[in-house]
Amino acid sequence: MTERKAWVTGASGFFGGVMVRLLARAGWHVIGFAQQPDRAFALGAHYTIGGDITLAGTLSALRDHGCPDLVFHAAGGSHVGCADVDPIKDFRRTVHSTAELLHGLGMGGAVDAHIVYPSSAAVYGVQPPGPIAVAAATRPVSHYGWHKLGAELQCRQAVERYELSITAVRFFSLYGEGLRKQLFWELAERLRKGDDRLELAGTGEETRDYLHVEDAAALILALPRPSKGTLALVNGGSATETTIAAAVTAFQRALGTAVPVTFTGVVRPYDPRHLCADMSGVNILGTQWNEPRPLEAGLLDYTDWLRVNSGVTDDGTGKPGTPTA
Amino acid sequence: MTERKAWVTGASGFFGGVMVRLLARAGWHVIGFAQQPDRAFALGAHYTIGGDITLAGTLSALRDHGCPDLVFHAAGGSHVGCADVDPIKDFRRTVHSTAELLHGLGMGGAVDAHIVYPSSAAVYGVQPPGPIAVAAATRPVSHYGWHKLGAELQCRQAVERYELSITAVRFFSLYGEGLRKQLFWELAERLRKGDDRLELAGTGEETRDYLHVEDAAALILALPRPSKGTLALVNGGSATETTIAAAVTAFQRALGTAVPVTFTGVVRPYDPRHLCADMSGVNILGTQWNEPRPLEAGLLDYTDWLRVNSGVTDDGTGKPGTPTA
Repeated sequence: MTERKAWVTGASGFFGGVMVRLLARAGWHVIGFAQQPDRAFALGAHYTIGGDITLAGTLSALRDHGCPDLVFHAAGGSHVGCADVDPIKDFRRTVHSTAELLHGLGMGGAVDAHIVYPSSAAVYGVQPPGPIAVAAATRPVSHYGWHKLGAELQCRQAVERYELSITAVRFFSLYGEGLRKQLFWELAERLRKGDDRLELAGTGEETRDYLHVEDAAALILALPRPSKGTLALVNGGSATETTIAAAVTAFQRALGTAVPVTFTGVVRPYDPRHLCADMSGVNILGTQWNEPRPLEAGLLDYTDWLRVNSGVTDDGTGKPGTPTA
Repeated sequence: MTERKAWVTGASGFFGGVMVRLLARAGWHVIGFAQQPDRAFALGAHYTIGGDITLAGTLSALRDHGCPDLVFHAAGGSHVGCADVDPIKDFRRTVHSTAELLHGLGMGGAVDAHIVYPSSAAVYGVQPPGPIAVAAATRPVSHYGWHKLGAELQCRQAVERYELSITAVRFFSLYGEGLRKQLFWELAERLRKGDDRLELAGTGEETRDYLHVEDAAALILALPRPSKGTLALVNGGSATETTIAAAVTAFQRALGTAVPVTFTGVVRPYDPRHLCADMSGVNILGTQWNEPRPLEAGLLDYTDWLRVNSGVTDDGTGKPGTPTA
């Protein structure tokens, strides 16, 4: 069997890094487009390309390495708060980079590749309670969410104009090894610094749909390639709704702490109260995807990593580094 | 009465230039953002700002000049063919420039301005016969059309996040003084060079909705400002369907020529067969807009200009220049 070839952009980031590691382990030949090429190498990439993603660079890579079977475009802004502080930077990283990559793949005739774009549930914004289907109206709240929607528009343009095959997966709350932000990371930081009580915003009754990043990666590998000229939209979640209070309890149990938790009751106006993926579309597509691990199991894995890495600066090697001051 | 203040981007271009001229004539204080500041000055701008549109430059202009009453954002790619040759350039000019301007206006708190974005009927792509309403599904064909849709998405983002008031006007086929491309310009060029017969692509039975650029400008000035945080979508057309064959006949009559015309019958696959604006939305908005001039009348004006300017290079002064070789 011919060796399967994958391109991963954002290959030194959280999700891209996990994809590089899993693909390499599964025998794929992996080319990583990375801001930190050393880190992508350490994770298992066979070849890395540094710097910004450009149309010309994409064409060169197609010429030098041929058309890949899979392109996982994880490069882009990855922080809701940072996007609000500097929306133009987030626009460049998310919308513009997607335009450069897809025009390059399109002009280079990469019609045999399955291009997977990790979009976000942030495109939905505030929705009525209950599972959210991909057919729901998109009305983002954060600039991050708007730019994910802008990148999806680039995907629509590319399939219509270049006959590419793209799946955009709207991921809900991903977590796992390598994630240095969001609820669990912040809890770990506060516990490491010796906080003996945890006060959190909101009521604790808000819900999220947590998906371990390795299950997210498995979903991507299980997705069938859409026919040429088609953009498939899929949700990426566990279809399980967990309250923040329950998530914090599960996290402390996995970490072996039992610090008292209180909620301020102050609800941030733009924070969705409830987020849960309707995953029925995945079955319709005929995906061979196993049931994702429950949050409790996934947190055992993540807390193993956090015990070593909480308070540790990411030095780009993918290995534990220097504790932060 | 206080002097009304307008900003016009793309102030040395076709549509932006006409707006500068008409606004200045009507007593507005006009600031032109222009690639060719001399030309914007010649057209009547009181102050010009050169170079690319940036968030920082927009904030500076708000600080220096205060919040304008009207912002007409005409800067952007303006050529379907050029956008297909270099889509990234068109993306930068259309989508990215809109992002920079709107984030600047939003962060600068320009909530009292009416921002008008000249979008395009190209966002509709190929539609069933009959007038096209703004509620029609958007499925662009050209990269130019996709990028106009991307710029509209930036408008949606800006009204939701910054409480700005924006009207996006989807203009159909604009024509008039200053337009150096498209059907009438190309016909004038061929007739000037002495062609004694005109062979044109298509069947001649395709239809377009022609609107004189000064009527387009009048429409913009008649539009009510939407309430804060609202994006109004409006069509910009005459609501009159004209066949290409009839348009060519009217053009020759206005120019005083009568060269035989044939059509190849070869239909370009992505060329919409029929384009006509449903303008009922404009009445709903309570717009004080007079009936636009018929094509025959508008062409008398345009051919007056073409007699002087056909074959003449645009030297940026807005005055007749050197005939092209």
